Amino acid sequence: MTDIARGLEGVVLAETRLSQVDGQAGKLTIAGFPLEELAPNATFEETLHLMWYGRLPRQAELDALADELGQARSLPAITVEVMRSCAQKRMPPMDALRMAVDTLSLVDAAAEEQGRPANLRRAVALAARMPTIIGGYARLLEGKALVEPRADLSHAGYFLYQRTGEEADPAAVRGLETYLNAVVDHGMNASTFTARVIVSTRSDLVSAVVGAIGALKGPLHGGAPGPALDTVFMLRRQAADQGVRLEQVAEDWARQTIEAGDRIMGFGHRVYKVRDPRADVLAAAAARLFERTGDQALYDDARVVEKVFIAVLQDLKPGRNLSTNVEFYTALLLHGLGLESAIFSSIFAMARVGGWTAHILEQMEDNVLIRPRAKYVGEHNQKWVALAERG
Amino acid sequence: MTDIARGLEGVVLAETRLSQVDGQAGKLTIAGFPLEELAPNATFEETLHLMWYGRLPRQAELDALADELGQARSLPAITVEVMRSCAQKRMPPMDALRMAVDTLSLVDAAAEEQGRPANLRRAVALAARMPTIIGGYARLLEGKALVEPRADLSHAGYFLYQRTGEEADPAAVRGLETYLNAVVDHGMNASTFTARVIVSTRSDLVSAVVGAIGALKGPLHGGAPGPALDTVFMLRRQAADQGVRLEQVAEDWARQTIEAGDRIMGFGHRVYKVRDPRADVLAAAAARLFERTGDQALYDDARVVEKVFIAVLQDLKPGRNLSTNVEFYTALLLHGLGLESAIFSSIFAMARVGGWTAHILEQMEDNVLIRPRAKYVGEHNQKWVALAERG
Repeated sequence: MTDIARGLEGVVLAETRLSQVDGQAGKLTIAGFPLEELAPNATFEETLHLMWYGRLPRQAELDALADELGQARSLPAITVEVMRSCAQKRMPPMDALRMAVDTLSLVDAAAEEQGRPANLRRAVALAARMPTIIGGYARLLEGKALVEPRADLSHAGYFLYQRTGEEADPAAVRGLETYLNAVVDHGMNASTFTARVIVSTRSDLVSAVVGAIGALKGPLHGGAPGPALDTVFMLRRQAADQGVRLEQVAEDWARQTIEAGDRIMGFGHRVYKVRDPRADVLAAAAARLFERTGDQALYDDARVVEKVFIAVLQDLKPGRNLSTNVEFYTALLLHGLGLESAIFSSIFAMARVGGWTAHILEQMEDNVLIRPRAKYVGEHNQKWVALAERG
Repeated sequence: MTDIARGLEGVVLAETRLSQVDGQAGKLTIAGFPLEELAPNATFEETLHLMWYGRLPRQAELDALADELGQARSLPAITVEVMRSCAQKRMPPMDALRMAVDTLSLVDAAAEEQGRPANLRRAVALAARMPTIIGGYARLLEGKALVEPRADLSHAGYFLYQRTGEEADPAAVRGLETYLNAVVDHGMNASTFTARVIVSTRSDLVSAVVGAIGALKGPLHGGAPGPALDTVFMLRRQAADQGVRLEQVAEDWARQTIEAGDRIMGFGHRVYKVRDPRADVLAAAAARLFERTGDQALYDDARVVEKVFIAVLQDLKPGRNLSTNVEFYTALLLHGLGLESAIFSSIFAMARVGGWTAHILEQMEDNVLIRPRAKYVGEHNQKWVALAERG
């Protein structure tokens, strides 16, 4: 009898220098750095350099990378046409992103060269265009014109500029950078794994990233932070309408939800048995942002709701360790940046493309075709029956 | 010390009723049927029904499926625009196919419904448009106009019509059907596995097929039958130029190639230790086709070259069992149909989409997120260093 590893849980596919997820200790290491050390300090350009080269850039390297990203931001005409067709049909932003990124094969940054330097140029060119596509598509969905790309802004700053048409406050740029850094990589998750399987056939970087976007789209990937914040808004409204304290409304709702067998979004993670380390980093980033630019009351209310939910979860699901995950504070932080939940998953992809491309480069450097087996449980030796004689 | 399963070789991912590859015995079972029983007898519509429903269709079911396929052949305008942009840049047909199929999310055949019936409709709609894209793109590359889709032709017949603009000879349709059937599914190969990983996040069918096309593109997937036939043509020219018998030229070339450490394309397979069962089925189909419509001398010469190559391989690599694989006779058969090697991989995809979509449906019915692990071998606990202080 063959064992079937349906989710490949516990199967170790590869060695990596990119990230380590220690679910028991609640610790995430990004290319040598504890998340808490990297995320609040690095620009996203620095994090990309860390992912691609294994170390932080020196000034000249950082300038060169920023310049290369800045120069590669404009989109081919057909990419814009695809985005317009998607907007006309009100396609979800993740589908539009997948289709638009797919067309980037038309602008090969390395003119058919192979090898690591050529693929690094491709990675830069692909990452550079993600803000243009994601920010631009959000504008098209609102019936607004696209914003002309600018080469002089940082990656995170350019995304906010492309989304809004205005230069963002440095506090907002810093908040977004912290988010992008926090989710740039996370072990062998399903989208990263998809990218590795695709390039394991010696296919190309764009094909692999397109496959990864397709995988990230699925709700089981955990890339959908919208619902966690929607709950906070809903509870605030209920508390106001009923003239009851938020604590009370949150506790009642949490108990009813859990007793009905439903899941509370934003809590619990397949890997983390303690608090998701990204939650703390994002909570701190949200606190800094809201202090300076935002709605302090929303931040305070979110903390209240989180505290109540954890208490209820500990009461009703003792021993399950259902702590706050990355979604809860992602939603709060991105909302604080003025971004709408419809594009949260796309912004996740804008960050994770750093991890995908670095894993693709790692896979290419020491490649083996990834091809598991299936166990056949069907019939054998059936005979052909002519159409007229089929019962 | 953790074992690393880099290629997942021997890891069993899932149970399937779709196909069994018995590499030791050289036997391929497609949904209960030995390949030899199914491939030369079934239309591709019958094979699609077998893949999707687990049994051959009755007349009314076959008529309904043929009708549904026929009605879904036309492309959205933006898909054609993407194909035109690809043709302008002379993009390889597999890239154009991937980009074009990606845009098919814009024509959801099931209007956001979920569940098996909705996904079956999506599978039909996607498979239906593959001949339009592949045949049409080959025309665009030649500067020809696209052919208006026709609903009254069989799937294989419609592809040949779309490629050439003329109705094909029934012998050609039969030859193509045998090829499509022979490669419709082949266990948990890398592209099929990619599709399963993507839908394991509960993503959608188009995302999964796009990822699979990206994986099939890679040369390690074994979907590139062109080079095998190119060798035959090259040897024929050499024999003619030098006035030497083909046997002699083939033997000299094979010995030199193997002694130089190079691979002879079209021979040997990772899984099959004996002759690839698809090779026989395709050889027989090629023989029938060439007898009726084609270049009998080419067929005879290919058999001569095959025989010489196998003798040389047995001599120089004894015990390796390097037999003729599917590529050799695929190339011969598709060439005999008047098709060019540049689109052989795309035609492979046109067949394999039957397998991909059936595996997607199987995965969706009993889904677990597919997510292996990585072993982290990088640094730990590095401290942030300010930009100016980096050495």
